[in-house]
Amino acid sequence: MKVGLIRVLTTDNKDILLSHERIIRNKFNLDIETKCIKDQFDGINSKKLFDEAVIKIIELAEEFKDKDIITISCADDPALEELKELYPNKTIIGAGKSTLSLALNYSNKIGVLGITDYLPRAYIPYKDNIVLARPKGVRSTLDLINNKESAIEEAIKLREKGVGVIALACTGFSTIGLVKTLEANAKIPVIDPVIAQGIFAYFETIR
Amino acid sequence: MKVGLIRVLTTDNKDILLSHERIIRNKFNLDIETKCIKDQFDGINSKKLFDEAVIKIIELAEEFKDKDIITISCADDPALEELKELYPNKTIIGAGKSTLSLALNYSNKIGVLGITDYLPRAYIPYKDNIVLARPKGVRSTLDLINNKESAIEEAIKLREKGVGVIALACTGFSTIGLVKTLEANAKIPVIDPVIAQGIFAYFETIR
Repeated sequence: MKVGLIRVLTTDNKDILLSHERIIRNKFNLDIETKCIKDQFDGINSKKLFDEAVIKIIELAEEFKDKDIITISCADDPALEELKELYPNKTIIGAGKSTLSLALNYSNKIGVLGITDYLPRAYIPYKDNIVLARPKGVRSTLDLINNKESAIEEAIKLREKGVGVIALACTGFSTIGLVKTLEANAKIPVIDPVIAQGIFAYFETIR
Repeated sequence: MKVGLIRVLTTDNKDILLSHERIIRNKFNLDIETKCIKDQFDGINSKKLFDEAVIKIIELAEEFKDKDIITISCADDPALEELKELYPNKTIIGAGKSTLSLALNYSNKIGVLGITDYLPRAYIPYKDNIVLARPKGVRSTLDLINNKESAIEEAIKLREKGVGVIALACTGFSTIGLVKTLEANAKIPVIDPVIAQGIFAYFETIR
């Protein structure tokens, strides 16, 4: 089984590019290859960039014709439905839906910690039981590295507001290795969107 | 991490009782213990039996106070929401929701093969894209063992009706070891509700 992982952040830094692949390989030992979309140096942090990314992901997926599994490493699940339609014989995974599915095992009251003031699409049907938060100073995935403290503060505030689990709505939290620190401070489960997509991919390999 | 697995079929046959535990242990090597609810010798195949089971599961869960994870091995997710409310510090898994979440990675057009003429609750929000089927002669989980051929026929018919994945809506298909045979005949992915709950439990142990 071969996994293709799509990054929605354009980068020529190999270490950043392969950071999600590395997390998934360490946990699940999967045969995985990463590619990123073009000319999207801030990733996705607006509906306009989302729409642009959808087209690019569909193009990029053509380079993953040999893969059994394609996973879209973005919490907003761009092009998830489109790839499912285009590749009915592949397993298509989105980080957003995967994270949500897992979060629901912990609590119906979900704190969503992300980088936008709108909910990622997977979460919209659950919006009445969701508290959305964004760390101060963070407007794109690249801002996370310089705002770890405010991310921790927001995670603690989410628990104080009564949520039972935190779903991370940006894979950048995984990239910078902040997930376990957030959990240690929030003292409730924090679901890592990269590991979440990994376990759905792993399922296909062992089922 | 300790897992408590709740069977909704009453049995004093150890081999049957432990059949789901065995599947999950073989796949994921989890520390798992099984208990079944009382006086429900046909399992759950009606809304009345569902309601009766909910009360029994809540009672039985008290014997799993030492577990980190409780999984309800029934495709209709009885008492899932109740246990989440009662045990906010445990991970609570239902076979139905787990199977659905995984099935959605394969296709939005889902064939649900079960033992009732009503949809298990997890599937109701998706009903417009679901084809529900029940093998001829099957009215309870115990009937499956004598109706394997008609289960295979129904799985083939589901694919012919255009679904992209089959979600098994009775864990009895796993008990009798029919899942891979169904998949080989249907030629589309068939999601095993016991392995599905297992992978959600596994996530909690490795995340």
